[in-house]
Formats: sequence, structure tokens, C-alpha cells
Amino acid sequence: MKKERKVFKELLPPDEAMRRLEERVPPTPPEAEEVPIEEALGFYLAEDVKSPINLPPYPRSAADGYAVRARSTWGASEDEPVELRVVGEVRVGEAPGFELKEGEAAEVDTGSALPPGADAVVMIEYVKEVGDKILVYKSVVPGENVLWPATDVYSGQPLWKRGTRVDSRVIASLASVGIRKVRVWRPKVYLISTGSELVEPGKPLETGKIYDVNTYSLQARLREEGFVPIVHGVVPDDKEEIKKAILEGVEKADVVVTTGSTSAGPADFVYRAVGEVGEVLVHGLAFKPGKPVMLGVVKGKPVFGLAGHPDSAYFNLERLVIPYLRKMVKADERSQSSTKAVAATSFVGAKGRRTHVPVSLLTDGSRWFAFPASHSDHAMVSYSKADGYIVIPETRRAPVEPGEEVEVWLFKDPSYKGAIVGDTDVAVDAVVERLDYPPKMLPLGSYSGAYASKMSLRSVWISPEAVGKEVEVEVVAVGRGERVGVPHKSSFLYPFFSKFLEVEGISREELQKRFVRVTMPTPQALASAVASGEVDAAITTRNAAEALGLDWRPLSKAKLYIGWTEDHAELGREVLNEFLRRGG
Amino acid sequence: MKKERKVFKELLPPDEAMRRLEERVPPTPPEAEEVPIEEALGFYLAEDVKSPINLPPYPRSAADGYAVRARSTWGASEDEPVELRVVGEVRVGEAPGFELKEGEAAEVDTGSALPPGADAVVMIEYVKEVGDKILVYKSVVPGENVLWPATDVYSGQPLWKRGTRVDSRVIASLASVGIRKVRVWRPKVYLISTGSELVEPGKPLETGKIYDVNTYSLQARLREEGFVPIVHGVVPDDKEEIKKAILEGVEKADVVVTTGSTSAGPADFVYRAVGEVGEVLVHGLAFKPGKPVMLGVVKGKPVFGLAGHPDSAYFNLERLVIPYLRKMVKADERSQSSTKAVAATSFVGAKGRRTHVPVSLLTDGSRWFAFPASHSDHAMVSYSKADGYIVIPETRRAPVEPGEEVEVWLFKDPSYKGAIVGDTDVAVDAVVERLDYPPKMLPLGSYSGAYASKMSLRSVWISPEAVGKEVEVEVVAVGRGERVGVPHKSSFLYPFFSKFLEVEGISREELQKRFVRVTMPTPQALASAVASGEVDAAITTRNAAEALGLDWRPLSKAKLYIGWTEDHAELGREVLNEFLRRGG
Repeated sequence: MKKERKVFKELLPPDEAMRRLEERVPPTPPEAEEVPIEEALGFYLAEDVKSPINLPPYPRSAADGYAVRARSTWGASEDEPVELRVVGEVRVGEAPGFELKEGEAAEVDTGSALPPGADAVVMIEYVKEVGDKILVYKSVVPGENVLWPATDVYSGQPLWKRGTRVDSRVIASLASVGIRKVRVWRPKVYLISTGSELVEPGKPLETGKIYDVNTYSLQARLREEGFVPIVHGVVPDDKEEIKKAILEGVEKADVVVTTGSTSAGPADFVYRAVGEVGEVLVHGLAFKPGKPVMLGVVKGKPVFGLAGHPDSAYFNLERLVIPYLRKMVKADERSQSSTKAVAATSFVGAKGRRTHVPVSLLTDGSRWFAFPASHSDHAMVSYSKADGYIVIPETRRAPVEPGEEVEVWLFKDPSYKGAIVGDTDVAVDAVVERLDYPPKMLPLGSYSGAYASKMSLRSVWISPEAVGKEVEVEVVAVGRGERVGVPHKSSFLYPFFSKFLEVEGISREELQKRFVRVTMPTPQALASAVASGEVDAAITTRNAAEALGLDWRPLSKAKLYIGWTEDHAELGREVLNEFLRRGG
Repeated sequence: MKKERKVFKELLPPDEAMRRLEERVPPTPPEAEEVPIEEALGFYLAEDVKSPINLPPYPRSAADGYAVRARSTWGASEDEPVELRVVGEVRVGEAPGFELKEGEAAEVDTGSALPPGADAVVMIEYVKEVGDKILVYKSVVPGENVLWPATDVYSGQPLWKRGTRVDSRVIASLASVGIRKVRVWRPKVYLISTGSELVEPGKPLETGKIYDVNTYSLQARLREEGFVPIVHGVVPDDKEEIKKAILEGVEKADVVVTTGSTSAGPADFVYRAVGEVGEVLVHGLAFKPGKPVMLGVVKGKPVFGLAGHPDSAYFNLERLVIPYLRKMVKADERSQSSTKAVAATSFVGAKGRRTHVPVSLLTDGSRWFAFPASHSDHAMVSYSKADGYIVIPETRRAPVEPGEEVEVWLFKDPSYKGAIVGDTDVAVDAVVERLDYPPKMLPLGSYSGAYASKMSLRSVWISPEAVGKEVEVEVVAVGRGERVGVPHKSSFLYPFFSKFLEVEGISREELQKRFVRVTMPTPQALASAVASGEVDAAITTRNAAEALGLDWRPLSKAKLYIGWTEDHAELGREVLNEFLRRGG
């Protein structure tokens, strides 16, 4: 059977694609749900809220002491106290049953209602009780230690607009004015992971299979933003099954999100499924990661067919689905935190596509510097540690140059206690294991370590070209065979590839004919790939080989320099000592 | 019965108080719980997590197309394609059953495992299929369109430290490496609201009573930080009942938090209850708001007796309880976001107490300017709209001066779309009601409006001393009686108090003898307090009086000036027109 193949001819700009979807399926709110205020946490108000009462509702004492008319106390001092007659008391929770006149006082606690006629409270600290009288040693002014009605909020005051996301302070204000229930919007999002290759985490993984990530990452991300995921789970690459799942989704939820099965290959089942039960509006987006996006409508509900790679799906959700959902609940345009940073290296956008590059940030104390979170594509685990990401517009042709200012959209606060950047080795892992805090790791190789050294970025740097203490590392070969693990160009091990060929007796020509080169970023990755059989042979360090119990053959010695900024001296010395302890 | 009264003699600095507690009850983790990764969202890892696998676990195609040996394609171009023999296909999810040699190709989809021998993938876009052969129109380099094993993460790589708070990206990384369950720490916090005056929101409020806020605000705040509130609910001011609740709390939870009943008055029940079943370590803190804090230990568990005012309890929780809980789960010191700002007015700390002042921020486009979130104390509803707060150290004697730089600890992103600052009136409420976004409101009176005008802060300002369009507002008297609502000094209505006395025929002497002055911030608050009977008479605007259907007597006319920055022109004109429409 000859399969149809489709190539994305037209890649729509993301804004234009979303405009098409929103025109066809306007983002209207789901039905509002009335919930107790504590259950509204994290969701969006479906109504404008006004205060039904004045707050405080009546004058209250702000201290323990005696309610008085302020002028009764005038002239009082430590030497010449004023005497007042105690005519009653008002306990917290009681309604005062009498009126207060000049020369009189009433005992009150913090929070007591003030009796009519009182306009101030003398704190207990400045009073001496003598029978049914008190001596007041300090005068007060009208209003002192009193919370007046309507000073916080007045009856009818607009409090919150619909679309407000409910946080603990919103809840505090609602409880304060006596509101027990509010109406909120909680859009439901149906999540379908497609792919016959998907295995549930926790189960064993055979070659060809891959763990289902999107079911877990997308539901968590939606919850973080106050939306309600309904998890369908994994559906194999089968048009009929996908169709069934989507039809279930539009019944049960407001929005349907699928991941995978959207590429322009024979496995483009989501596109076909939506085409049969609804309408495909967009297929193929000028977006990276996550080009093969499908936007469609089924029974009046929007269906987002996201790309399958976990990072693609994550960015598709972040930049397409979540903004749509926020419009549904009338939330303001998201004010995602961002920060300016200096590009520490060049960043290349995919031609004609809006490119999202996860980055890690280091600082020199005054500016942030942005490094790529990974050298490889689709590196979800590395990305999960990124501080944020930069966006290279689809219209930009030239790469972002080192030194250029970039805007970094933050996943989290980028500040850090410790950071290690450059050529890492198992010595670094050992140090990290002992620390009681997680340092920021940038295992990006020699260039990054040298850059951090040159710019004095707050960190420990490791690189053959950095300023610091010299350590020697033994470079070795491990394993034998045709699939060869080769260090990434950015690694300090890279120059030893020729030496490897020489020692192993492999000619350049033979290399090209017989060998498959597998590029990997760190000594640990290289050793680990041999240990687990993913490659047959590799160049790595003796330390990395020994950590995994691999036999090794010596190739050469490499010199690394380890340095640090003053605030990283302790961590730096730990790393240095660990390298020295393990020896070259 | 003569009640005991206690005055706080010694107010401990907060750090010293917490040191005492932590020495006596070290913040140790609760028992770890193993949960599916999706249920770990928001909680703290109880274990260091390493990757059990390489990722990718085997070489995968990053595109739809044909797996090849890169060198087989060298020389290919649009004019001179290279011909390769198709020897098989690898569908996503399948293990490849053959090895690839030079001159051969195998059909693959995005995500397919690469057959051994292949080192690159030619995208389908550059291939023409001819029978069992393909024509390749573009050469590839080794590694092109391939995700190599262990390039994202290597087997054994440390991923996350214990104490890491689990977010959607942590979950993505755990699923990626096949981890289905993790152990997390979820400290349980028992919440007890004390006070006979407390009424559940939603119920009617009698004089002397107040709504229970802390049950709702504290549980929400704890949830936001990944801790598990267990709500006991309201307990009356009764030592035995409080004792019982605390004993229940130390059985069911890791930490007990009470609010209220801690002041040094006769209602100091928490102090006495803890003293009887455990030990009081600290009573009275150099802290504002929330001085009467009690720290104790009962059956080996920490008990935090927080102050009862909702804002006091909120700040006590924020700065004392949450840091303790974070230490329990080994979280890093909180990197709460903060920003520098210019003090727009003076801020006075309480003598000898660490003072927390909620603030609202406006910007001139380059710097932030900090205004108090409210003129009155314990104004939880106003505080709930604050952008953050400043901290005035307990050791500082002089007030913070206008123009001084302050650090603002942020509740939320302070950026805004629209802002209205200064002398607000019902006209402003009407505008706010019509807007489809919530403007930032700073109803702080004439000084603030004039300051925003002078500094060109991005906003609409309203003040008798601002630069802008003139509008006339009619100042009126409403109601009659002894409790008189008087405008706050910061209000444009304040100068009309003498006129009020003159028109109403009240002498200064009589005023001091017979009247109670209740100071309120805005015309709406003044009118609203008369309408609801909290005061008998007030000075307000005709518009505010009429909005509530109050009879009014004319006093005078006030001139206000309404201006705006360029980016607030639309909002400014709306406000201006509403004032003009309503007339003076």
C-alpha cells in the first residue's frame, strides 16, 4: 500500500492562525459555576463583585484598653493623670448597650464595638484601674486606636472585575465583606495523547517506544493556569480511535487538545479525523518547536492538534492554547514576567518560523546573560531546568548575535545560590550530590565556561580556555564497534577525536564508510551511552568510565581550568578539590 | 470579677523569636508520601531524583523522511539528485529489524527509531519516491534530523534535589525518564480561628460581630505555597475549647496555627491554653501588623498563635509560618520577587517593630513609585489590591522620606493597563464599571493625585492641585446628628469642614463636647456610612449623595483638575466626561 504523504506548503504565522480560529470559534466563557470562596482559588471570577457592606461595619477598637471621648483625656500626663468613671464594658462580639459621655470610659478589647459617643481608645498600657475609676496617663486624639466604619471599603464599592484570577488576597477580601460563594469560570480541557509508540511512565521501555509525557506535563501546566484538564490518556495512531476520542472530548469539555499524529507524514491522523467529524482551519504553523499544528472545530468546539514532542507540545500549549483559554475567561492579556538579558552566544531561529529557545541565565551582578538550556533539540529534561525562553520572530533572518540584548520570558525567578558552567565531569555530579541546595547547571562545554570566566559571571567555570586553577583529566576510549560516541564540538574532549582514530587504527575513509558518529554533550553522557549499549564505543574521561565500571584505554591528558567569582569561592573549591582528588 | 490584664513588656525581634522556636522545635520534614507524579504538582520532593535512563534512549528521527548514511547523499542537489534503494521502513513505535548500508534508505516518521547504520534523516520535502527507489535532492550531514541517545539526559544524571517544588516542567522531566511516582513532603497545617465575634461569611452580621476571614485567607495562602491546610473552623474565646482544638491539631497535623485571642487583654486565651498543655516560648513580637504573636510547643509540635486581624494574620503567616514550613521541606530560602521603588510619600514604621506596609505601584516608564495601599490600618480589602509591601526594620527610627528608594516585596506583577489616582468620586466608579479591564485604583486623595501629576506617572490623576482639565464638584452636607463623618485630611473635601460647621450652626466648642468625628477617605465612603447608619451626618459630594438617594444641603463648590499621561488618554477622557456629564 502506497501511503499518502503531505508536505507543509504554507506555514501560517501563529497570530494569523489564531485569528482564523477565533473568528470561527470565538473564545466565549463556559457556564459559570457557583462555588464556596475557598474552592475558587486559582480560577477566574465570572462576575463583577461589589461589597455588600461597609468595612469596618461599625467603629471598632484597635487596641485593648478604654473607649473614651478623646477630649476627656486632654491634659493627661505621666505626672498628672486624668480620672475617668468606668460606666461599662464592651466585650468582643457584643453590641454596646449604652452611650458614652464626657468624663466616662468603657472597657474594650481589640475588636470590640465602640459605644456611641466614644471617639478614641486609651491603650491599657497607659491606664491604672482604681475601683470603678481609671487614671489615664496619656491623652489621645479623636480617632486614636479606632477603626472607623467604611474606611476600608464602602457599601457598593466595586471590588473585583470578572476575569480576575482568584488568589489568597482576593479570597481574604471576599470573606471580609461576608461573601461566602462566588461564580467562577473553570474551562475544561480534554487531553488526548496520540501515538502507538507511547508507554506509560513506570513501565519498561522497548526500542522504538517512548514515554508518554504530554498527558502529565500538559495537565499540570493547565492546572497551574487555573484550567481543568480532563485526561483521556493515550490513543494509538488510528484515525477511528482518534475520532472517537475527539468526539468524546467535545461532549465533555470546552476545548479539546491532542498531541502527536499531526506531522505531514503518513501518521497524520488527527488532521484526517478532524476533517471527517468537523473542519480543519489551519494545518502547519510558522512555529518552532511544534510546526505541524492543526487547528480545527468539531461540533462548535475548538480542537488544538499539537505537535507530539514534549517540548513542542509544551510550547504550543503555552503560546496558543493558554492565551485562547485566557480570552475565554476574560482574563487580561497575560503579563508574563520577562527580563532583559545579554545573549551569551548566538541563537539561530528556524527560517520563517517563530522560534522559542529555552535559556538559562547567569548574572555578573548587574546584567543577566542568556545561554541555551541545551545544545540539542527536543531536550525536554534540559528545558525543564531552563529559567525561561527567548522568542526569535518569524520575520527575522539574521541570527541573534552574542552581546545582543534579548527579552527572556521567565518560567521562574532566575536568581540562584550556586552555578556551575562549562565542561562538567563526574566530579561535578559528585559535588552536586553532596550539596544541600541545587546549583544551576550549565553543562554547555568549553565556550560557555570560557565566556563565564571572561565576563566574571557569578558561577564556578570549567574550561580549557578559562582563568583558574589547572587540573588534569585523563581522556580515554571505551568500547569497540561501529556506532561511535563522539564529543560535541563544544566539549573539551572534541579535539581528541583524531587521537582516538589514530589509537584505534581507523582511517578517515573507513570512518566515513563504516562508522556512525553519535554526538553527545558530556563525558558522562558518552560513557553512559556505552554502558547502556546505545553506542558501541566512545571518547570520554577516565573518571566517567570508571564511575560506570567501563574498561578504558588511555588516549591523552586534557588540561582544564577551574575558576570562580568571589561569591562562589566555597562551591568552586569543592569542585576543584573533587577534580584533584580523582586525579588526571 | 477582676480580670487579669497583661501588657507586652518585651517585644522580641522576629528573627530572635523564630530562632527560639526553631531551637526548641527544629523544622524537620513530615513523613514522605509516594504519589503519582501528576498529584505531586505544587508540593516538595522528598528525595533526590536521578534519571534511570538515557534520553533519548536510542537514536530517533526528528522528521518525516528517509533514514540514510549521510555520506550516501553527498553531492545531491536540485539538479542532480542522488538515487538510493529503499530497503525498509520503521514506523513510530517499532523496533528496526534491519541494518542500513551505504546507498540504502529506510522510510521513517518523526519519532521513529533509526535503523542501525543510519546517521541522518532526509526530510520528505527533499525526496521523490520512484518505485522502490528514492531520489534525494539535498545532501545531509551526519546527525541531521536525528535525536541522539543521551544528548538530553544520561542514565544516572542527577535531575532534582529534595526540597524542589514540583511544577509542570519538573513533572514533564519525570515523565520523560519514565518515573511514575515520586515521594513528596506535604506538611499539614491545622487552622483554628478563635473569637466569639466571628461569623461565617454569608450569614447576617450584627453589631459587634465580624466575618471570619482567616479561615479562608490562610488556607488559600497555604495552598498557594504547597502546604496542606486542615480547617478546624471557629472556636469561641474559651480557654477549654481552644485547648481542645489545639490538642486535636497536634494529633492531626504537623503544625498548628491559631488566629486571634492572643492580645495582652483578658481575652488572651491562646497563651493560657498553650501554657497549660505545652510551653509558651514567645509572647509578643516586634512586628507590625500582628504584635501579639505567641509561639509555643505542644506535644513536640510547633503552635503559632497569630494575631486576629486578617491583615495581621496574613503577614504573620507570610513572614513567620511559611518560612518555617519551607525549612521543614528543605526548600531554598524563598526568592520572593521584589523591585526597587521610589517612596511617593513618607512611610512611618511602628516604634521598635518591624513594620510591613502594603503599597500600590505606579510607574513613570522608568521607575516604580510606591503609594500606601490604604490610609487606614487593618484595611484587608484595600490591602488585597496592593502590589506588594515594604518592610521598615525594627531598628529604624526615622520615617522613610518621599523620594527615598525602597524595596517592594511583590504580591504580583505590578504592571498595569490603566490607573486612577487621587480624589475619586462616584463618577470614577461609574467609569470603572463600564471598563472591560480592572484599572489600578489609588483612591488616596489630593496629595497623591498631585504627585502623580507632578511626576507624570502613567495614570489618570484627579486633584485640586494637579495639572489638567478643570471640573466643578458640588460639596454637600447629608444627615444630621452627633456622629459626623469628616473627610480624611488627604481628601479634597477636607477644607470644607469649617464651612459645614458654619452652615450647620455648630460652634467649635460644641463640636468638641457633643460630636464624634469619624474620619473617612472618599465621598463615596462618607455618603455610604450615612446611608447605612454608621454615622449620622457627613460632608460629601452631591453625586455621591444622590447615588445613594440621600437628601443633601449645599455647602460649596470644589474645583478638581483631571489630567493624564499620553498612554492614559482614552481612560482620562472617559473619567473627565463622566465628571462633566454629572455636573458640579
